[in-house]
Amino acid sequence: MNMKRNGLLFIISAPSGAGKTSLFKKVIEKLGDIKASVSHTTRSPRPDERNGVDYHFIRQEEFQEKIKRGEFIEWAEVHGNLYGTSVENLKIIQDRGLDLILDIDIQGAEKIRKAYKDAICIFILPPSIEILEDRLKGRGSDSEKEIQKRLNRAKEEILHYKDYDYVIINADIDKAADELRSIIIAERCRVATAKNILSLVGGM
Amino acid sequence: MNMKRNGLLFIISAPSGAGKTSLFKKVIEKLGDIKASVSHTTRSPRPDERNGVDYHFIRQEEFQEKIKRGEFIEWAEVHGNLYGTSVENLKIIQDRGLDLILDIDIQGAEKIRKAYKDAICIFILPPSIEILEDRLKGRGSDSEKEIQKRLNRAKEEILHYKDYDYVIINADIDKAADELRSIIIAERCRVATAKNILSLVGGM
Repeated sequence: MNMKRNGLLFIISAPSGAGKTSLFKKVIEKLGDIKASVSHTTRSPRPDERNGVDYHFIRQEEFQEKIKRGEFIEWAEVHGNLYGTSVENLKIIQDRGLDLILDIDIQGAEKIRKAYKDAICIFILPPSIEILEDRLKGRGSDSEKEIQKRLNRAKEEILHYKDYDYVIINADIDKAADELRSIIIAERCRVATAKNILSLVGGM
Repeated sequence: MNMKRNGLLFIISAPSGAGKTSLFKKVIEKLGDIKASVSHTTRSPRPDERNGVDYHFIRQEEFQEKIKRGEFIEWAEVHGNLYGTSVENLKIIQDRGLDLILDIDIQGAEKIRKAYKDAICIFILPPSIEILEDRLKGRGSDSEKEIQKRLNRAKEEILHYKDYDYVIINADIDKAADELRSIIIAERCRVATAKNILSLVGGM
């Protein structure tokens, strides 16, 4: 009997400054049995970012070639940079039965959902606009103009929370990480998901 | 602005011997902010059971009067004893906004679900029939005939897992408790549930 199930696809979106990335890393580390999808981008790495881990950092021409070859399930231009999710990336769900977390913006999430209807969508919210602004400023790498641009974008994005299945308010990172971990574990217990129970029940 | 939300109702069912009761207690203790519904029954308490905590132990006549007065949302006869869930018990969800766990058999769960369509239903499974039998025997208070009766009933009940939202296989109590806790926390993060985000988002 084939007990392998397809992996689950978790989509996580958040306005920038909601603290998604650190939350995300914490939970992947904690769980150990879930993989993070690594996107491609043409933007420059921030000082703490590593190629192949945080993103695949590639040049504009390479990105355009990948688009032509149909290697992206979705791609978009954000603040003048290109971001894309490769088809290859999502294959591990089917091929290896691994659960995958995809860290992606709202527009990207919409496109992925159309291809993967079973995707579980989680939205991370900052506790308030003031804290969001503080976090964006604290990042240090962006200009005042860039911060205002991101803040305005964030305010619009926040209203999309209704398109998601779950919402996490990231006021306290440990609480938020516990919630994200709980959502992943709970989804693995869903009757429709926990296919291994069929063989258990069948044996009774 | 009224930020109070209605509490969530979690229904937990399991064939006897699945280890539901100890699992249940562990999670309620761990979480601290969820209440266990206490059912009424006419059966005699087991040595470790306390009145008002595990059950409200009442006499047959009292139970019948409560039925007449319409005080039960559901009641049933199981193995010659009466069990019921009082309406009063479920009121705290609306009145106090508390989350409630209701430990109830499959037939009872079906009735409750009709009245509370938003109830979140969780089924606990034993890892195997052999382990289920061992657990029933280990309880010590039941005769061989009673054990066989329960075992046959359990085998039928197990097939109802499909009517539930979540399934937990109770092979390891700590893992199972973590899963139950995760389901409760995840459900509190659902967009439809987390009503407090409306006031947060409204303030942005």
